[in-house]
Amino acid sequence: MLRILQKFGGTSVADLDRIQAAAKRVKQEVDVGNEVAVVVSAMAGETNRLVNNATQISSGYDTSEYDAVVASGEQVTAGLMAIALQHIGIDARSWLGWQIPILTDNIHGKARILEINTEVLSKKLSEKQVAVISGFQGISSDDRITTLGRGGSDTSAVALAAALDVDRCDIFTDVEGVFTSDPRIVGKAKKLEKITYEEMLELASLGAKVLQTRSVELALKYQVPLQVRSSFSDADGTLVVDEDKTVEQELVRGIAHSNDDAKITLIRVDDRPGIAAAIFGPLTDSNINVDMIVQNVSEDGKATDLTFTVSRSDFDRALDVLGKSKEELKFQRLIGDPDVTKISIVGVGMRSHAGVAQKMFTALAERGINIQVISTSEIKVSVLISSEYTELALRALHTAYGLDAS
Amino acid sequence: MLRILQKFGGTSVADLDRIQAAAKRVKQEVDVGNEVAVVVSAMAGETNRLVNNATQISSGYDTSEYDAVVASGEQVTAGLMAIALQHIGIDARSWLGWQIPILTDNIHGKARILEINTEVLSKKLSEKQVAVISGFQGISSDDRITTLGRGGSDTSAVALAAALDVDRCDIFTDVEGVFTSDPRIVGKAKKLEKITYEEMLELASLGAKVLQTRSVELALKYQVPLQVRSSFSDADGTLVVDEDKTVEQELVRGIAHSNDDAKITLIRVDDRPGIAAAIFGPLTDSNINVDMIVQNVSEDGKATDLTFTVSRSDFDRALDVLGKSKEELKFQRLIGDPDVTKISIVGVGMRSHAGVAQKMFTALAERGINIQVISTSEIKVSVLISSEYTELALRALHTAYGLDAS
Repeated sequence: MLRILQKFGGTSVADLDRIQAAAKRVKQEVDVGNEVAVVVSAMAGETNRLVNNATQISSGYDTSEYDAVVASGEQVTAGLMAIALQHIGIDARSWLGWQIPILTDNIHGKARILEINTEVLSKKLSEKQVAVISGFQGISSDDRITTLGRGGSDTSAVALAAALDVDRCDIFTDVEGVFTSDPRIVGKAKKLEKITYEEMLELASLGAKVLQTRSVELALKYQVPLQVRSSFSDADGTLVVDEDKTVEQELVRGIAHSNDDAKITLIRVDDRPGIAAAIFGPLTDSNINVDMIVQNVSEDGKATDLTFTVSRSDFDRALDVLGKSKEELKFQRLIGDPDVTKISIVGVGMRSHAGVAQKMFTALAERGINIQVISTSEIKVSVLISSEYTELALRALHTAYGLDAS
Repeated sequence: MLRILQKFGGTSVADLDRIQAAAKRVKQEVDVGNEVAVVVSAMAGETNRLVNNATQISSGYDTSEYDAVVASGEQVTAGLMAIALQHIGIDARSWLGWQIPILTDNIHGKARILEINTEVLSKKLSEKQVAVISGFQGISSDDRITTLGRGGSDTSAVALAAALDVDRCDIFTDVEGVFTSDPRIVGKAKKLEKITYEEMLELASLGAKVLQTRSVELALKYQVPLQVRSSFSDADGTLVVDEDKTVEQELVRGIAHSNDDAKITLIRVDDRPGIAAAIFGPLTDSNINVDMIVQNVSEDGKATDLTFTVSRSDFDRALDVLGKSKEELKFQRLIGDPDVTKISIVGVGMRSHAGVAQKMFTALAERGINIQVISTSEIKVSVLISSEYTELALRALHTAYGLDAS
């Protein structure tokens, strides 16, 4: 007997037929004697519909009311899933965030889970009642509904999996697993059998939209055995595991890309101590995160060029903030470019191998692709290139690192 | 300074424009210094959509899960209304049934309110924060969401109005008030300025769909000053008041009709003591309510005919139940007729005036309308007629009792 958590994303519960298909997957686990907790997202499109309603009334909506509105989507799916399970003879009930409770902080719209009381839930599971839990939502200490941010159902699932100490956490989604690169662009992309938490974390934060970044952080922290798999096929998915559980140590496990960045360059900015703080301070104050940063060596010791990236949604605001500081920062010109793509290679094997980045630079150079900014970490190398080269770069790198399906 | 409760029904919050229009009505009360509690229904059509989803998955759905699903409709409206109020500068927050809490029994799908804790709510109102409360829902003692049955938001509103001891409870709907008869059929129907609780109660249970019957019972019990009015106009609505507050004592206040009944006749059923119990026992066991009953005088002392009405939705089931008891009841024939309409005249003036019913029978007879069954109470007379005469009967009675608009 195992304890399993199954998480069904929005496309896996998109309509009544799919909810019933998902219920059959739950039944398979119940039928072999397993204890099953289920976490559900809102039916695909529902959260957007609810968000639009709130936004149309007021652009500056109260986030606690926004949460009350959008959390209803997962409430509906949980109830419908419980009914679907009962209809096929499975003892089941729905659980809303506040009923468990899943206690969060009170940062509405992007709350963090503080504590999950699993006492009753765990007892019900051991009595073989399936618990169908609304993802994405929790309750604050002052009894208001909170939500965990877009994609937050993944986080709900992993946090519950950890709290319930499950033997396996299956994330059902609309892709068959984690691929070496985006299969819609790289035709030869392969499904990975296994990937480490660290690699998944990098891929998730670098643009692979399979799992929410925070859910992977949690899975790593609590060593939750994750499987990403398709709700539309019975094929094995991708196991997300600890590093010592992966057999082959490939140099590069996957290649991600993201169009969420925009580049900003300050031309001939004052080259003096404290200038970085003077530039990034106002951005931080405006809640704008800066990602990649490059500062050119100053030729005359007086002025230098500084390039960095921000989230594309913050682009206009960032230009505005910097424009207002022009006199203080004494730069000559401010150049913005939103048409950039970040391409990243990720693999734990990089730790112990030299020359991995060099191969990337060479492969891109051979195709005439100019690298605008580089940033590296222990297990990834990211480069910023002009967006028009995205497909070319992804395919070239996929081949260069020997990832192409045979 | 008054304390007001405003209840907005489904058509009054049918879309974002109407929610914003309703918010402006709330603002009018706030602007003159009143404390305002708001009760909202689900956006028109939303509850049906949710019910259909549940029903499509399983006809024998679990009512506690049904409640979790359908209660989401009012949750969404409450959040959106709070946002709409904040958008026009009004301090407001949404309250779900479980947050107040509105404690109910655990009869899911048609729960009854047991207790409302208004301590926090009342404090917030006195601090001039508008409380936007999800109608139709409560919480059971075991922390599950309950709903109060279709139209239950009226009951939520009146129960909260009583618990909050409001000075006025305005029920905003899509009609201008309570009319002497259905204005869609009786062109000369008039809006009533006032009506007594008892009259409203009879009209509500006899087919006038302005207010849910249980909400009127509560209003009577707690003497809640109700006003039924249109959310689409500024005209005065109808005040529902205690009998001593109505000035004119009209004989008949209103004429209602209902197509929710079906007639069943047992031909030549055994005429012996206990036969009624033998007939109605199995129906009661099957949860089928019997309304009007007529038993003919037995000519030979051996067998008689028995006619009664059941809800049209129970009609097929009732015939089925009785058919199975044919041998025991020894009736000759079972005749069912769903094409009947119940027409009722209602008025507290009947108590002290003879001849009110006679005028009804005469008016119908003059138009050749056959009365199939009669039932009376202190303040109403109901007759069952063939449905095809509905409009004719309503207009004739409206004229006969002097209710026509001049």
